[in-house]
Amino acid sequence: MAEPLFRRLALLGIGLIGSSVARIAKERGDIAAEVVANARTPATLERVRQLGIADRVEADPAAAVAGADCVMLCAPVGAFAALAEAIAPHLAPGAILTDVGSTKQSVIRDVGPLVPAGVHFVPAHPLAGTEYSGPDAGFTTLFENRWCLLTPPPGTDEDAVEKIAELWRRCGAMVETMEPAHHDRVLAIVSHLPHLIAFTICGTADDLEDESRQEVLQFAATGFRDFTRIAASDPVMWRDVFLNNREALLEMLARFMEDAQAMARAVRWGDAAYIEDKIMRGRRIRRSLIELKQA
Amino acid sequence: MAEPLFRRLALLGIGLIGSSVARIAKERGDIAAEVVANARTPATLERVRQLGIADRVEADPAAAVAGADCVMLCAPVGAFAALAEAIAPHLAPGAILTDVGSTKQSVIRDVGPLVPAGVHFVPAHPLAGTEYSGPDAGFTTLFENRWCLLTPPPGTDEDAVEKIAELWRRCGAMVETMEPAHHDRVLAIVSHLPHLIAFTICGTADDLEDESRQEVLQFAATGFRDFTRIAASDPVMWRDVFLNNREALLEMLARFMEDAQAMARAVRWGDAAYIEDKIMRGRRIRRSLIELKQA
Repeated sequence: MAEPLFRRLALLGIGLIGSSVARIAKERGDIAAEVVANARTPATLERVRQLGIADRVEADPAAAVAGADCVMLCAPVGAFAALAEAIAPHLAPGAILTDVGSTKQSVIRDVGPLVPAGVHFVPAHPLAGTEYSGPDAGFTTLFENRWCLLTPPPGTDEDAVEKIAELWRRCGAMVETMEPAHHDRVLAIVSHLPHLIAFTICGTADDLEDESRQEVLQFAATGFRDFTRIAASDPVMWRDVFLNNREALLEMLARFMEDAQAMARAVRWGDAAYIEDKIMRGRRIRRSLIELKQA
Repeated sequence: MAEPLFRRLALLGIGLIGSSVARIAKERGDIAAEVVANARTPATLERVRQLGIADRVEADPAAAVAGADCVMLCAPVGAFAALAEAIAPHLAPGAILTDVGSTKQSVIRDVGPLVPAGVHFVPAHPLAGTEYSGPDAGFTTLFENRWCLLTPPPGTDEDAVEKIAELWRRCGAMVETMEPAHHDRVLAIVSHLPHLIAFTICGTADDLEDESRQEVLQFAATGFRDFTRIAASDPVMWRDVFLNNREALLEMLARFMEDAQAMARAVRWGDAAYIEDKIMRGRRIRRSLIELKQA
């Protein structure tokens, strides 16, 4: 077995992503010699204790990061500013501070200015998830063959970046580096907008008069059923993602709305060729995804 | 084994749905003593011959329906008017004409007036499907625990309705009767709109500048990936569905667009409570679906 990358890994937040990292660290042994878990609620901390997926649980984030050479923020991104403020004075010199947030410009904006000199800040985002949340939802194969995108600010210590890259490779992920603004744009279209749409259509269906609504549930065919799966994701996490990737999300939503209006117009005026062409493009994209083994 | 429901079942169109019915009929033996398959292209007919899923294949729809006591239209709904015109003079007295189209008002409008006296017309719609199409895509468990909705016009012979209901029950489906207009509204929200949205967002992504587009494919996370699966469905079938359920689809799309605009506004102005509430509703709907065993 390889030498552990870190002596002590502190996970601040232990939901789907954090608890998966904890499980992998425990199973492999070569990620951290010790894993400390922190969570906001006593119930989650108690559950983590029962699950036995961390070596130690700490109710206080400051206590959790003391002496850790790697600190990973795994809470919803809206909680990062307050968490960073709470832990900043307690971060060990030379430690690496990283995160798993779905929005990267906001994390750099909220956390960056609070990072003490001598602490390395390596923002990261593993592109993996399910519709389940909480410490019970994690599993050791969550990141296998998934991407993890690192968005280190210019001048970040290269050894620190490489250590976080290696952590994610040991979790099974493929690692790539990206500009934070570009990350936020790409994620807006591949993840944030699809989730916003899925939440929205569930609301649209829920607003129908009672009789139809009952039948929406009864006759949920392919299509709506798949949207509800996406829409079952964690509300606080997604609320924070939307609010923290506002510009890119609104731009992609505006583009999508224009395209949906054009489709509505084609349906109204019976433009069969236009509709067929749009459907063909969906097929082509699906085929490309399958070739890239992302589907 | 029960007596076969029909002496001869003619399937006009033998894609995902038609070839699944053919396979079930062959496997069970109590649906039809003989299955005749008709398709538009010689290639499909040849493939059906190779697969051995029909007792006989016929290139001419009129020849396919001759002597059949049950005729099922399984082509895209846009082809129904021409098909009905071609077969009407050749339908056997007392035969039942049924279909599997996703839009019911259009089918009654297009086919109804062409049905000869003495032939029973029982429109039906099995709510089942995958993103695959063609005679190879069918399988015998496609309809298991799925609904099949019958929308017989007022005055339809009750024995004929019951025979079609029994056919679908033998295919594994649960059967319910519904008003055609109500069917089209419910299907617009549970199936047609989700497909329109999925096709549209694939186009939106495909229109991004080259660099981002490449990365959309590379980093397709949960969300977009699920939409591309829906968007991989058959272009001609879906084009026809949109054009033949225009009013209900446009109404549901307009409602959805209003809701998406409201969500955009909440994101722009940071209305966290609004966003969280919408996401919670998605979760609740998902939970209801799971309780109803439709997810």
